[in-house]
Amino acid sequence: MSETEDEVPESPPEATDATVDAVLAAVEAGDHDALVAVLEPLHPADIADILEQISRPERRALVTLWGGELDGAVLSELEEGVRDEIVAELPDDVLSQAVQELETDDVVYLAEDMEAPQQERILRALDDADRVAVERSLQYGEDSAGRLMQREVVVAPEHWAVGNAIDFLRREEWLPESFYDLIVVSPQMHPMGTVSLGRLMRSARKTPLRELMDEDFRAFRVDQSQEDVAYAFNKYHLISAPVVDADGRLAGVITIDDAMEALEEETEEDLRRLGGVGDEELSDGVAEIARRRFLWLTVNLLTAILAAGVIGLFSDTIRSFVALAALMPIVASMGGNAGTQTLTVAVRALATRSLSASNLGRFIGREGLVGLINGVGFAALLGVLAGLYFRDARLGMVIGTAVTGNMVVAGFAGVLIPLGLEKLKVDPALASGTFVTTITDVFGFFAFLGLAGLMLGR
Amino acid sequence: MSETEDEVPESPPEATDATVDAVLAAVEAGDHDALVAVLEPLHPADIADILEQISRPERRALVTLWGGELDGAVLSELEEGVRDEIVAELPDDVLSQAVQELETDDVVYLAEDMEAPQQERILRALDDADRVAVERSLQYGEDSAGRLMQREVVVAPEHWAVGNAIDFLRREEWLPESFYDLIVVSPQMHPMGTVSLGRLMRSARKTPLRELMDEDFRAFRVDQSQEDVAYAFNKYHLISAPVVDADGRLAGVITIDDAMEALEEETEEDLRRLGGVGDEELSDGVAEIARRRFLWLTVNLLTAILAAGVIGLFSDTIRSFVALAALMPIVASMGGNAGTQTLTVAVRALATRSLSASNLGRFIGREGLVGLINGVGFAALLGVLAGLYFRDARLGMVIGTAVTGNMVVAGFAGVLIPLGLEKLKVDPALASGTFVTTITDVFGFFAFLGLAGLMLGR
Repeated sequence: MSETEDEVPESPPEATDATVDAVLAAVEAGDHDALVAVLEPLHPADIADILEQISRPERRALVTLWGGELDGAVLSELEEGVRDEIVAELPDDVLSQAVQELETDDVVYLAEDMEAPQQERILRALDDADRVAVERSLQYGEDSAGRLMQREVVVAPEHWAVGNAIDFLRREEWLPESFYDLIVVSPQMHPMGTVSLGRLMRSARKTPLRELMDEDFRAFRVDQSQEDVAYAFNKYHLISAPVVDADGRLAGVITIDDAMEALEEETEEDLRRLGGVGDEELSDGVAEIARRRFLWLTVNLLTAILAAGVIGLFSDTIRSFVALAALMPIVASMGGNAGTQTLTVAVRALATRSLSASNLGRFIGREGLVGLINGVGFAALLGVLAGLYFRDARLGMVIGTAVTGNMVVAGFAGVLIPLGLEKLKVDPALASGTFVTTITDVFGFFAFLGLAGLMLGR
Repeated sequence: MSETEDEVPESPPEATDATVDAVLAAVEAGDHDALVAVLEPLHPADIADILEQISRPERRALVTLWGGELDGAVLSELEEGVRDEIVAELPDDVLSQAVQELETDDVVYLAEDMEAPQQERILRALDDADRVAVERSLQYGEDSAGRLMQREVVVAPEHWAVGNAIDFLRREEWLPESFYDLIVVSPQMHPMGTVSLGRLMRSARKTPLRELMDEDFRAFRVDQSQEDVAYAFNKYHLISAPVVDADGRLAGVITIDDAMEALEEETEEDLRRLGGVGDEELSDGVAEIARRRFLWLTVNLLTAILAAGVIGLFSDTIRSFVALAALMPIVASMGGNAGTQTLTVAVRALATRSLSASNLGRFIGREGLVGLINGVGFAALLGVLAGLYFRDARLGMVIGTAVTGNMVVAGFAGVLIPLGLEKLKVDPALASGTFVTTITDVFGFFAFLGLAGLMLGR
């Protein structure tokens, strides 16, 4: 921001490479005061970033030197691997202090993926009331709305007027840090409507809440998936939404920040699964990462061996016409890439629920047609190139026909395979890629070498 | 929700396949009342979903039958292609009515990607004040904070007390639909702090805003990128943030829903670019989609031809040992897949700004090491398999060595190429994939066939 006449407040500092250097210098010098001076003005998310970016021994030295000043908020900003590592090293009293500062949904987020003994340590650190709340949340299934919600809910009985609500809000000390709506409940704790704070504030004290409340709110059940919740928040632009138990009673509330985090995680997960890397984190060790990726590559190896088997069937054809060996990867690669394009679109269409009975047929037909159009285009291009280069028109025809066929196959495989996996309740992002490239490899090699055998006369 | 003693309000209806069928039946029968009866209770986002999922002629018939009741909110929920198509068909008076209902940020969102004549129609439909606001927003660069912000801001002078602010809020009619913070400004309109509505409501009327306000807020400049904004909202869990002009004066406010939409778009864009499909939409026509994908596939074709050229260098080797033709795609494919894994992680690490000077070296080293470890693993596996199957230990050694080398190359290429593109200000998600597989294909074929030529004695 440029200088101006009156004082313009500075934005809070962010962590830069220089900050990381200053932190490491303080840690190396064992200078507690210097360390605190650098870290203290930072947002917990920036402190977490620094902890993630330095090496494990540096991290250990930092935490030891920093001592009791590690904030609960920093813990909940850390990625899982680093967090577990740090929690394991914290003395009980520091951990206990850190955890007590958090709201229950953050404690749940912190504890849910931990091993039992670690989780036990976290739970022991809490007050009785908070522990019961966290334990109850942990009973809901992983990735459920129950896990995502916070239990600190601001409710108002339906017979209240605006004045009652405002007096109540002024009186209560425990209110959650961020809340945007008052939830109006029946005597049996069924949510009846919501009143936004803006609306509450702008209405006369005597107005009954019943008259103000929005009855068109969307509620979630504790056992609904976080994916459902994220999808609805994004689609309907929700800011907060009540969560109800099986009897329709208010159990908690989900706010937009948690829902959007869930949405971002879903998209990120699709992206990583399409790329063949599951849930690995940037701070994971070499051994862990190598092991996870090895599994995925093994699946790909089986695919590649299958394709090699197909090629093996045509050894004699290749021996008598060795240009085929150079050209065959082109056929497979064009099919594989076209299949990946269709697949990417199909996986996201499924994730964003954009495919329905009314457009599914059109979508499949369109992908086949796109494959055909581009297939014919590349067939012409490649056919002419190969025919001229190898001075053999038949070779041009063989590669052109094989490419066209493979790209049509790619279009259909790219949409039908994710659809099939979705029907089988397997995440299409996880496995579709291998299946699609297997099909385009096998079909591509088979069509190209088979046609070549027929047309080149051997 | 299960039945209970007192009345539990139903969640609002959502669009299902049955809804789409009912809509299409009404359209086919030309039954305006039936159409309105189905659409009226739906959220604009659901109506937009239906419009996107039906075919173009059905869409046209629906819009004509629905007539003047098309809501501005529906327009702003539509994906670009469908939206432009519908706007083009709407009569001026319907369009004008629809657009006037929207807030300025939604109008900007609607108009920014339109062709000039369409944009002109939208602008003409607005009141003078709104038109000026929208035109000013459109002057900010695409993907800038200025485009994302809304101009309807609730400000309070710094000398006010809580009572002044509450009276002001009660008095004003024009307030934006959703706002969470009051922005306290200096006489020169510099933002000095923010007061959340919850805080405002819970404080005594006499309390000066200066005492309540949070001075630790984060402000954005109008020319900052939306990516920056989305990143900061996500990282610091912001709910709303002021946007200032070059002189530090308040120009607007960005709220979490818009920021999170921008974040989701960034991730989705990375995913699609990694999959080789740019900005295509599900409702795009066959010709448009075929054209866009063709360009990308052409780049891949050049890669494949390069790889074919490498294979062509070793024609004699292949002719005398045709098993190589079957095995060589395995070497290339293992490298390609390992490279894609590393690439996916690197692209996302860059996007989430998780790579810094302090962990970059460690990251590159780790990826190389993971390549080496898995390379040796697969080398052993493949070496033994190939050696046994073809009864030739030398062939096992050749494929083992080539796979190991290619996977190390994949590890380094997968991280260095996106890093290099980022330095060159090219989106790593867009182009890295082709470069990485080109390198692993060329290196893989060259290493495998070259070694084979040396070791198998020809």
